[in-house]
Amino acid sequence: MKINIDRIKKDIEYVSNISATKNFGCTRFSYSKEDKEAREYLLQEFMKIGATVQVDGVGNIRARISGASKDKPIILVGSHIDTVMNGGAFDGLLGTVCALEILRVMKENELVFERGIEAIIFAEEEGSNFGATMLGSKCITGKYHKDDLISLKNDSGKTAYQVIKNFGFDPDSMKSMLLNLNEIYAMLELHIEQGQILDDSKNEIGIVNGIYGMKNVRVTLNGVGNHAGATPMFCRKDPMVVAGKIICEVENIVNKIHNETLVATVGKIFSIPNASNVISSQVVMYIDIRDINDETIDLTLNKVKKYIKKVANNRNILFEIEVVSSSKPVILSKEINDLFESIAKEKNIKYLNMYSGAVHDCAQLTGISEVGLIFVPSIKGRSHVPEENTTYEDIEIGGNLLLEAVVQLAKRK
Amino acid sequence: MKINIDRIKKDIEYVSNISATKNFGCTRFSYSKEDKEAREYLLQEFMKIGATVQVDGVGNIRARISGASKDKPIILVGSHIDTVMNGGAFDGLLGTVCALEILRVMKENELVFERGIEAIIFAEEEGSNFGATMLGSKCITGKYHKDDLISLKNDSGKTAYQVIKNFGFDPDSMKSMLLNLNEIYAMLELHIEQGQILDDSKNEIGIVNGIYGMKNVRVTLNGVGNHAGATPMFCRKDPMVVAGKIICEVENIVNKIHNETLVATVGKIFSIPNASNVISSQVVMYIDIRDINDETIDLTLNKVKKYIKKVANNRNILFEIEVVSSSKPVILSKEINDLFESIAKEKNIKYLNMYSGAVHDCAQLTGISEVGLIFVPSIKGRSHVPEENTTYEDIEIGGNLLLEAVVQLAKRK
Repeated sequence: MKINIDRIKKDIEYVSNISATKNFGCTRFSYSKEDKEAREYLLQEFMKIGATVQVDGVGNIRARISGASKDKPIILVGSHIDTVMNGGAFDGLLGTVCALEILRVMKENELVFERGIEAIIFAEEEGSNFGATMLGSKCITGKYHKDDLISLKNDSGKTAYQVIKNFGFDPDSMKSMLLNLNEIYAMLELHIEQGQILDDSKNEIGIVNGIYGMKNVRVTLNGVGNHAGATPMFCRKDPMVVAGKIICEVENIVNKIHNETLVATVGKIFSIPNASNVISSQVVMYIDIRDINDETIDLTLNKVKKYIKKVANNRNILFEIEVVSSSKPVILSKEINDLFESIAKEKNIKYLNMYSGAVHDCAQLTGISEVGLIFVPSIKGRSHVPEENTTYEDIEIGGNLLLEAVVQLAKRK
Repeated sequence: MKINIDRIKKDIEYVSNISATKNFGCTRFSYSKEDKEAREYLLQEFMKIGATVQVDGVGNIRARISGASKDKPIILVGSHIDTVMNGGAFDGLLGTVCALEILRVMKENELVFERGIEAIIFAEEEGSNFGATMLGSKCITGKYHKDDLISLKNDSGKTAYQVIKNFGFDPDSMKSMLLNLNEIYAMLELHIEQGQILDDSKNEIGIVNGIYGMKNVRVTLNGVGNHAGATPMFCRKDPMVVAGKIICEVENIVNKIHNETLVATVGKIFSIPNASNVISSQVVMYIDIRDINDETIDLTLNKVKKYIKKVANNRNILFEIEVVSSSKPVILSKEINDLFESIAKEKNIKYLNMYSGAVHDCAQLTGISEVGLIFVPSIKGRSHVPEENTTYEDIEIGGNLLLEAVVQLAKRK
């Protein structure tokens, strides 16, 4: 029993072509026209194999093939299909189509195991719309409530609640969609590594022991916009200079803490009015801090906050610092990792036990079920960019490892 | 003979309401829908008073009332009507409607002087579309040619040539629109100060001796985009950190040169893909450097370039530095300044001789005719922002000074 790599390739190619930025990578935000098109394709594929499909109030898709024992907790397997702006073809989508492929293999071999198997596609994992990652998996596990959807806003000021409702889902039904504690036996996710550890070390699979925690912080700096020629240097309240100093200091702070897992990034910045001949009136920047240790994240954030306060006050720049998204470090299931390892050894797969610097939907399921996550290599570690790539040889190895693990878990009494 | 401040107020209110950003200041880029609407209003006003109107190949509007002596060089008076993003109501528009008002005063008093008087509205002064300021006045004075319009591009990659042509003008006719050396006797412009020198010193008028030169430089930094969680700090080639260092160093360099007229600004920045959880693959930033002394501008730019080279090379960031817009410092007409001063003294106007940190279209006319520029105060020096403001008392003083100067020049044999 094996996955069919040609079908996976066809799925990847079909869905990754649905992008708002043709020739500039994949841009397929949740609740967009492109998302609708991708969903239609995948729903049809699930229908073809006769899976029972449910779509919940925020757009998580669940496609189930029941087990022999209807009441036993099931095996959940999946990932997401949304992307960052100008992202790659494999992030999220690969784990999604591997889950779909596992259902296809069940169906064509007419297999029924003890436990049901459900493919799940989580909505809005990347946070591309509202700056908050893993929205779908947070909703289905009760971490986000209707209030959160009302307070989260996109860059045009629309709430998540509005956007989701306008797209055609019913966020008011959130309560009825919660996963039950005794509903899921295990949650498995396959994902691209998005780093270069596997590629550098020539491993075929990463078995993930834990996932970094993350705090994403929005810093709003309000100065006084003015003409760039007619305003002497000593009269300025320029928030861009303060932003520049913060960007530099974020890196300095991380380097001084000197912890090899800690990372911090400023990737998003806006200037208002963003004109070359105008001193900015406002600069908004985002700082993303991650580590496997929650205390290190908080230590870093506190140092960053202290610095922002000092430099902004010195220059009479008003500032606001808001944590817009956060997740705790997560330790994954020892039991499932042992299962992954035993299968990998049996199949002579070169694997590595590692941490994940990227957060993933499956992390939200810890505490509700056993959770396991495996990585396939990202060529040169490139991810969230059009150049993101993984060989189909590696995908086949990962897909078959995932299939075998799902089957072994589904067979359990 | 006086200007009618109510008509000026009505013009300002009508045109400033034509904005792409209602409630967020004036956004009226040249060659936009809003520009079209503003042009229609002004053309109609010129028609009403029977001025001879011509619109050239890049959209400069010229509305003339002839003098008694048809062959004598005329008096040109005017400014621009385009704005920066989220700009103010008075920048450019005020000088334009004062020129219109002067023609109205001529007409209603049935005045014909020795020399003709022409109101001129220069297109694309702010450089909001293509990053190059004073496009219209550069074209009409032969500094920009068709080639320049083809090489200048807006943020969506469209050339100035295409945009102007699509808007309905004929940039191929550029050669026939050039001002002749013997066509213009004097060019006068009234503008808001855009700084706080007049407001702070309680002067009613600024008589401008000279205009700062300017170099606007685009810096493109190419790094390696990657996942913000999965990429260890030591593996990064992050162009945002380099941008942050450059922003800080631009200010340091200016402070060290310690010349009270020198200013430099980073007001415009783009990150690609501009996502909070992605290390930027590219950052594009603009540096605007101005001074009354050209050598100081070049000294500053050379220091900035040297720093960029050092910091980018240190971090394996590929970079490109392009001067996208530049203008030389300009000394204005002593003769016209003397005229402004004598009228100001006669009218008991509190005036100040000063420099302008902002460049203005009239500067392009030096070498072709005598050029004079006066400023009215900007409240708190705010400009290029929605809060930009000037009292109508000050506008009336400035408008009447301009009228008197135009009349005296037009009467000259």
